Amino acid sequence: MNEDLARERSKATFSVERITNLLDGCPHRRQRRRQLEAIIERDPVFSNDDNIYLSRKERHVRAIAKGVRLVEVCGKLGIGTQEERIFDSPDWLTLLNAIADDLPLGIHWVMFTPNIISLFDDEQQAKWLPQCLSFEMIGCYAQTELGHGSNIRALETTATFLPEAKGGMKGGSFVIHSPTLTSAKAWPGTLGRVGTHAIVIAQLIDGKGKNHGIHNFLVPLRSPDTHKPLPGVTSIDLGPKLGFNNMDNGLASFDHVVIPRRNMAMRFAHVDEQGNYSKKQVSRAASKIAYITMMQVRAHIIHEASKHLGIACTIAIRYSAVRRQGYNATDNDTAQELQILDYKQQQHRLFSSLAAAYCFFFSGKKVLARLNDMEARLAANKTMTKAETTDIHASSSALKCHTSTIAGDGLEDCRKACGGHGFLQCSGLPELVCTYVHHATVEGDNHMLPQQVAKVLLKLVQAVDGGQELSDYLNCDCGLLIPSIQSILGGDTPQFTCTASTEAELQSMSVLLAAFRHRAARLLVDIYRLMQTSMAEDGKSAQDAWNEALVEMARCTHAYAQFLLLYNFQVGLEDEAKRCTLGTSEIEVLSQLTLLCAFSWMERSMGDFLEDGCLTPEQSRWVRSGVRRLLDAIRPNAVALVDAFDISDFRLKSVLGRYDGNVYPALVEAAKRDPLNQTEPGPGCEQLLRLVGGGRVFTPTTSRL
Amino acid sequence: MNEDLARERSKATFSVERITNLLDGCPHRRQRRRQLEAIIERDPVFSNDDNIYLSRKERHVRAIAKGVRLVEVCGKLGIGTQEERIFDSPDWLTLLNAIADDLPLGIHWVMFTPNIISLFDDEQQAKWLPQCLSFEMIGCYAQTELGHGSNIRALETTATFLPEAKGGMKGGSFVIHSPTLTSAKAWPGTLGRVGTHAIVIAQLIDGKGKNHGIHNFLVPLRSPDTHKPLPGVTSIDLGPKLGFNNMDNGLASFDHVVIPRRNMAMRFAHVDEQGNYSKKQVSRAASKIAYITMMQVRAHIIHEASKHLGIACTIAIRYSAVRRQGYNATDNDTAQELQILDYKQQQHRLFSSLAAAYCFFFSGKKVLARLNDMEARLAANKTMTKAETTDIHASSSALKCHTSTIAGDGLEDCRKACGGHGFLQCSGLPELVCTYVHHATVEGDNHMLPQQVAKVLLKLVQAVDGGQELSDYLNCDCGLLIPSIQSILGGDTPQFTCTASTEAELQSMSVLLAAFRHRAARLLVDIYRLMQTSMAEDGKSAQDAWNEALVEMARCTHAYAQFLLLYNFQVGLEDEAKRCTLGTSEIEVLSQLTLLCAFSWMERSMGDFLEDGCLTPEQSRWVRSGVRRLLDAIRPNAVALVDAFDISDFRLKSVLGRYDGNVYPALVEAAKRDPLNQTEPGPGCEQLLRLVGGGRVFTPTTSRL
Ligand SMILES: Cc1cc2nc3c(=O)[nH]c(=O)nc-3n(C[C@H](O)[C@H](O)[C@H](O)COP(=O)(O)OP(=O)(O)OC[C@H]3O[C@@H](n4cnc5c(N)ncnc54)[C@H](O)[C@@H]3O)c2cc1C
Ligand SMILES: Cc1cc2nc3c(=O)[nH]c(=O)nc-3n(C[C@H](O)[C@H](O)[C@H](O)COP(=O)(O)OP(=O)(O)OC[C@H]3O[C@@H](n4cnc5c(N)ncnc54)[C@H](O)[C@@H]3O)c2cc1C
Repeated sequence: MNEDLARERSKATFSVERITNLLDGCPHRRQRRRQLEAIIERDPVFSNDDNIYLSRKERHVRAIAKGVRLVEVCGKLGIGTQEERIFDSPDWLTLLNAIADDLPLGIHWVMFTPNIISLFDDEQQAKWLPQCLSFEMIGCYAQTELGHGSNIRALETTATFLPEAKGGMKGGSFVIHSPTLTSAKAWPGTLGRVGTHAIVIAQLIDGKGKNHGIHNFLVPLRSPDTHKPLPGVTSIDLGPKLGFNNMDNGLASFDHVVIPRRNMAMRFAHVDEQGNYSKKQVSRAASKIAYITMMQVRAHIIHEASKHLGIACTIAIRYSAVRRQGYNATDNDTAQELQILDYKQQQHRLFSSLAAAYCFFFSGKKVLARLNDMEARLAANKTMTKAETTDIHASSSALKCHTSTIAGDGLEDCRKACGGHGFLQCSGLPELVCTYVHHATVEGDNHMLPQQVAKVLLKLVQAVDGGQELSDYLNCDCGLLIPSIQSILGGDTPQFTCTASTEAELQSMSVLLAAFRHRAARLLVDIYRLMQTSMAEDGKSAQDAWNEALVEMARCTHAYAQFLLLYNFQVGLEDEAKRCTLGTSEIEVLSQLTLLCAFSWMERSMGDFLEDGCLTPEQSRWVRSGVRRLLDAIRPNAVALVDAFDISDFRLKSVLGRYDGNVYPALVEAAKRDPLNQTEPGPGCEQLLRLVGGGRVFTPTTSRL
Repeated sequence: MNEDLARERSKATFSVERITNLLDGCPHRRQRRRQLEAIIERDPVFSNDDNIYLSRKERHVRAIAKGVRLVEVCGKLGIGTQEERIFDSPDWLTLLNAIADDLPLGIHWVMFTPNIISLFDDEQQAKWLPQCLSFEMIGCYAQTELGHGSNIRALETTATFLPEAKGGMKGGSFVIHSPTLTSAKAWPGTLGRVGTHAIVIAQLIDGKGKNHGIHNFLVPLRSPDTHKPLPGVTSIDLGPKLGFNNMDNGLASFDHVVIPRRNMAMRFAHVDEQGNYSKKQVSRAASKIAYITMMQVRAHIIHEASKHLGIACTIAIRYSAVRRQGYNATDNDTAQELQILDYKQQQHRLFSSLAAAYCFFFSGKKVLARLNDMEARLAANKTMTKAETTDIHASSSALKCHTSTIAGDGLEDCRKACGGHGFLQCSGLPELVCTYVHHATVEGDNHMLPQQVAKVLLKLVQAVDGGQELSDYLNCDCGLLIPSIQSILGGDTPQFTCTASTEAELQSMSVLLAAFRHRAARLLVDIYRLMQTSMAEDGKSAQDAWNEALVEMARCTHAYAQFLLLYNFQVGLEDEAKRCTLGTSEIEVLSQLTLLCAFSWMERSMGDFLEDGCLTPEQSRWVRSGVRRLLDAIRPNAVALVDAFDISDFRLKSVLGRYDGNVYPALVEAAKRDPLNQTEPGPGCEQLLRLVGGGRVFTPTTSRL
């Protein structure tokens, strides 16, 4: 064990184990997680050892084998046999995390099977779910096309009803067709090489030739016997990517592929044997549950943001404790060099990511709990207001957008904080960053989501402005903004001023939350007014006014997300304190992280707080000095705080982040294994000998072109 | 040609060619560049066609072949035969850019040969330079060690004098030795597999055992006949990296390797045959020229920031003109979708990078011109003040730090702005981003450079505060800050307030420059005072006070860099207008970019301008609305502005950025070439058949662990 790390660990003021238990959920889950991790780690099929030296093809094949092995392991352990939805099994998620590699089969669990559950009717589910669970089908979710991602209304793939009489199957068929180059399905994971079935999103054209917009269809892609594509189906991999390269994101087109009529998802709509289309009467509850299922993916992304930041911080903070660089200028040169973790600016970048990792955890938990609660209430036929459903949409959109933005930037910050060694694949950071950043694009592009958030929040402003009844908003996240919106619209002067009159008073979450709440509300009302002015005074169309406000919508969305994150962090901590899962020392150190989150976010967007006098210039200076003080406070616990994430070396895959801190020998061993080093001299040296050896090619002449 | 692109081009209000000429330097250089690019593009050795599908080893070997071929081409064209420094030949740089791939031989030209020129004496140069130019040696620059990057004083490699009498060579030797694991040389490019020689930086230990600190030594690594390592030398590649993978960054150690005494760099120091060390009396000019040579690398990095942003903007802006996504909500659904370039927020992220690309160009040019001028003056034995040399150090450090930060972030922004397709390697963006970001770490880590900048600038504050003579600063960049510093230290109230009383008045570069200047000076004085307070009031040591101020030093450095960049942009444009290289329409559109740079940087750091009343809240709103107006103004010229960079499709290597806009067919062709798609079914399918086929592995049991 590296001495510096040992010393850091001995300095911790809190119980690492208690925080680990919090993150795992309870001591039992932590134990179970470790047990399952051990199973994965000792199984050679799951080895990640040579990942970084393999070609894309080799890694893809290896990842297929891991997926198959995971199915075997689950079978042996009886995981996912009792639940309809294997991904609802915490054990399954633990195993997937334990593997610490991307699996081409992942989409089958995460998108395909859930889609069958949400959008197909009971009879369809009875038929196909067993095949999903037994892996007779390996599925993917094929929505995006070469020409259309965000604007799914414009998808071009068609599903045209073909009656039995005109050559369709018994009971009628649909013909799935890609009419253009741009209608090829592009990007669906598992579609390229691995999947045997796809949920294809296509324009439904009924028996009378009428287009009813997009619907989902289950389309067989490949033969179960040969795994070759079925007639009319072309499906290849989309090619090498920035990251996520184990996965075969696909490029597929359909040439009049005929499928049974009943392969259309028929829970909410129906097409009969004559090709007549009808919407189905389903309970509001049922339709909302389907919607909630999709929202759970967002909660998952918030969690992923926390987890990924946790991994990157573990690597960068441990390495920064081990790495010594630079003298204390006041000592003489022979003194030991400083741990780079002692440089304020290293702390500044790493601890703010550390704080965010903890912060995001609480919001991920909160959103998931809220969705589960809604689901349970719906199942029990309790009512739910429109405000509530749009609210969770806005919150989860804003939080997805903000957390994945902050996490993406934070991972790269952590990587850079490791200096040159962070540029090495064996540090684990490059693949972590490169694969993570796709979260900015999928499940709602981070630059598109603010429009969704604004739509919901602007309705609220309208309601307040129009003096509407607001009680529906009371148990909503956005309802928290109401007092601020009222005061701003009411023209109170000053609308809001932060009350802290000393630096110490500013270090209070209730004071800070009030400022964050006001800022989000103020930016929101600004948009409301900007659009009104654009239309009324500048004579812009509604569309142009909306476009004009896009930049501000993004600003407001991030502000709203930060408010929610801090609120959930604070409330979450209070809950844990009440439930006594954490002791005072754990609460103390996590409270420091809450404050650091708030202060460092304020620091980065100080203009937002100053421009309307929400903070005074003097208070803004307290924010900056407050950050420095918090860095000092957190410093002694930094290593213990990443230890508490309890990420095993197997999962870290990093020579820099190793628990034992033996960084340099591990780095050298990793270098030795590079394929470039397997021969002496190295590959391509015959070319070099043409230069340096006898028959040199470089015979200078003075001729000029 | 894609219709949208054609239309965009027809809308341009300025002459693309005139701006291209400006960027190339003159019409002749543009023509010559195209001529040289054509030579590269038609030579199959330089093909980049399958780069993205190759393994690291294959690319490395291919890049070696490209380097050898480049030497041949230079030989044939007579490039680099007349100049001592081939890299001073504009033709050589053009060829290197034209190749659009990283060459393992690059370091030989960029670091090794220049080092011989700057630090070795005339006799040494006479011996070795011909070997550099004829490639009998392939060299690298081995400074960094496994354990030390930033703190080079602490390098551990030793070079111990060994007299002839004790077994040294005739005239004495040095023994190069790596005493520890952490003393292994790590990171030097070309060191791992390719180089035959290294400049090794080592602690010089003289004949009496006294350590004289680090010096440079020319150390042969590999046999010119077999390319195998020489006795005592171990040298391998450091392993796969985030990017820059053609290059063999090395890991090398030396086991008592004996080299001739005269392999020590002896321009500025000397060790005689008895092992006596002495500093040489050289003219101040000579020592400064050596220093300037090193600074030129920084100027190069500023240029690279501009060039890389130019490439990314070309791809993202052309694609955003071609990509149509989303309806105009006020039209009906059957209308054509909008070009994504019309969304304000897409403009917001892309045009600010575009503006930065142009802005950085002028500073790169200015810094290089200033260095060349200094070099000429020194060669003519004119005097140069200490203020001048430290000033160019501060400016180039600040500009390197800021431009490479902005460019790194901007490239990733451009990538994300392309949605999913930007995640594909065939978009060209992933490799661009991943390779570029090492600029944040090399040639002074971007988080270390602010300390260098602060050291110089704080001296200036001290000089002003102490009422010292300031005339030496007058033709210095930092001298521009003096009036602001004086007013701040003098306690003027208000120290500064922006004079603009209308939104239109704010759109003036002289008004904006005054604000940027004040902000940089104010943040600088804040640091000065923070450190004084830390020491005087909080009783901190000088070291701790310095540490306490690190975060603010970074803030100040970026502020200073922004001021210089805007200043150089503005002065540069005025010069071009005077010289009539540009007409009024070109000046107009470039002036819009200058303003956008200023406004978007203000927008991002609004707190800096508000917290001391430099801007009023009202003015801050004008900044945000000004940005929106500028986006509208720039929109019609956006495609023409990237066309003006004149980056050929060969260099772009992007299916999304193609000049003809035929994005989708190119993307499909690229996908088809992936190795995963060469068999049907795909690789690894036998594993999948175990699942879906007859003998399925998944036999659910209900047993639990
Ligand atoms: C790794 C990865 C995995 C994926 N997996 C799947 C999968 O399993 N199944 C599947 O169906 N798809 C998948 N996708 C596709 C993904 O859903 C899309 O990439 C995403 O929806 C964005 O769409 P797009 O790429 O077409 O971007 P576009 O919609 O073309 O957007 C491009 C740019 O334009 C901007 N823009 C577009 N429209 C507007 C507007 N109306 N207003 C303002 N700005 C706008 C966006 O912000 C973005 O910057 C995956 C993508 C990736 C990268
Ligand atoms: C692609 C690439 C190519 C390279 N090529 C070469 C080459 O050809 N030849 C060569 O010799 N080297 C080369 N290098 C090495 C490069 O010069 C070093 O990586 C760089 O100097 C940084 O040093 P380091 O990696 O040891 O980081 P460290 O010095 O260990 O720094 C790590 C972190 O600690 C912080 N830190 C360190 N010291 C201080 C301090 N005093 N105050 C505040 N913060 C501090 C830094 O900001 C950084 O975040 C290359 C590196 C890369 C990535």
